[in-house]
Amino acid sequence: MLFLVGLGLGDAKDITVKGLEIVKKAKRVYLEAYTSILTVGKDALEEFYGRDVILADRDMVEVDSDSILQDSKTEDIAFLVVGDPFGATTHTDLVLRARKKGIQYRVVHNASILNAVGCCGLQLYNFGETVSIVFWTDTWRPHSFYDKIAANKSRGMHTLCLLDIKVKEQSIENLMRGKKVYEPPRYLTASLAAEQLVEIIKQKREEGEKDIELAEDSLCVGLARVGADTQTLLTCTLEQMTSVDLGPPLHSLVIPGYMHPLEMEMLKQFALNDSVIEMIETLERKSEHS
Amino acid sequence: MLFLVGLGLGDAKDITVKGLEIVKKAKRVYLEAYTSILTVGKDALEEFYGRDVILADRDMVEVDSDSILQDSKTEDIAFLVVGDPFGATTHTDLVLRARKKGIQYRVVHNASILNAVGCCGLQLYNFGETVSIVFWTDTWRPHSFYDKIAANKSRGMHTLCLLDIKVKEQSIENLMRGKKVYEPPRYLTASLAAEQLVEIIKQKREEGEKDIELAEDSLCVGLARVGADTQTLLTCTLEQMTSVDLGPPLHSLVIPGYMHPLEMEMLKQFALNDSVIEMIETLERKSEHS
Repeated sequence: MLFLVGLGLGDAKDITVKGLEIVKKAKRVYLEAYTSILTVGKDALEEFYGRDVILADRDMVEVDSDSILQDSKTEDIAFLVVGDPFGATTHTDLVLRARKKGIQYRVVHNASILNAVGCCGLQLYNFGETVSIVFWTDTWRPHSFYDKIAANKSRGMHTLCLLDIKVKEQSIENLMRGKKVYEPPRYLTASLAAEQLVEIIKQKREEGEKDIELAEDSLCVGLARVGADTQTLLTCTLEQMTSVDLGPPLHSLVIPGYMHPLEMEMLKQFALNDSVIEMIETLERKSEHS
Repeated sequence: MLFLVGLGLGDAKDITVKGLEIVKKAKRVYLEAYTSILTVGKDALEEFYGRDVILADRDMVEVDSDSILQDSKTEDIAFLVVGDPFGATTHTDLVLRARKKGIQYRVVHNASILNAVGCCGLQLYNFGETVSIVFWTDTWRPHSFYDKIAANKSRGMHTLCLLDIKVKEQSIENLMRGKKVYEPPRYLTASLAAEQLVEIIKQKREEGEKDIELAEDSLCVGLARVGADTQTLLTCTLEQMTSVDLGPPLHSLVIPGYMHPLEMEMLKQFALNDSVIEMIETLERKSEHS
């Protein structure tokens, strides 16, 4: 049996009791290590489980999945995923490969940022489509994430922005030379994501676009290491977010749409300073009068 | 400290290791028992925890929260929620009440249907706004959930439909007489939800509405007891779903929007019969040619 086990978001103890039982009994234990990270590394997991853990990179999961699935018709294999197992397409693919070989599978769900984002106080039912914000390069500066945020906001919906992760990437030079040398991992920060958004806003204004849904003083919420002891939430404007350091990864960014009083009350708990609280209170008064 | 601990979706062992440690040490343990249910009851939880668990109904949480928060400045109080703690507004309210009293809080996240729905193979990033389908009565038959599903579908997005829960409801007669007699709990089934949708579709057609986004033969996915050992997933048409029994609660219903090949491949795993597989394969061929 193939067990896909969600690890949740924080540290080793965020695995479920059911998940831990499976890990302890499985023949082999893989850790998917390229779509997300915990605040603890493989060593801490191995110590907590009392088991060896095999790191599974993108190549192993997408190209060499046979090695993962080996013996899983007769033995239990655990495939660990940070967050919930179905957060990324690549795991659906693994399940389908297993099914084609006649291998049974079971899923042990866990928290992922898609529901844990509720910790900022914005109601999950009021979120529109989730967007991904990618690292801009000198030559590739897509705006598509802005359009999706704007579309959500125009319907009053909040947006969860997942921020880019670059793990085991090769430089173009090393790629062309066929050298298997990898760049250090990079994680898009809430600050840099806000910077990219502010740039798009400025560009739209310069181009004379009307009815721009976002502005430099739009409220946003930065979330860092959700679910971990060092979790940090911060409400401020997009402009302010560009110069804030929320610390180590992972970060996410939320752009609120229309907010109910209870939602505004929660955002105030994480306000950067008094002027942000005043901004929210102005919104509260407006919504009372409308 | 107030600990809000998510229990996940299946049974007692879906609590996280961190959550279980908190429950074992807390002075009092409450179980929120009106926004969702596990496949196991309070007794099974008490046995697994080796602790007494106090059932917290809506009245206790919303009106008498002081009793829950009592001593929590100096003692640890655990408040257990099926799924993730921030699935319902009422828990945000409890957090805000705690904060007003200067009580610290911590959240232990877990899976909820909002991310676990990924088990059907549809990608979470392709879901639009979540909708709630309510029980119709003779006099109250809202269509608003249909409009939201249609809006998602027109943008190619999938829709997760959460199905109504009626716990500790009074009949109008008992309510008027002030009798605290409660009706047995009721849970909207995927079958009845599909029936209500089909009725709306028929009505729209009779009223001559054009461009109706859904039809009786639209594909849907019924999900029952997600995360539990008895989890059941079923892909069929809305019309077929009206006469399907997915067993005990909780149920959810998903209406797919535009599907990628991998998503269609997963839905086929749960097809009601060969004709549903053929329907999906026809969609696959269409999407290859477009």
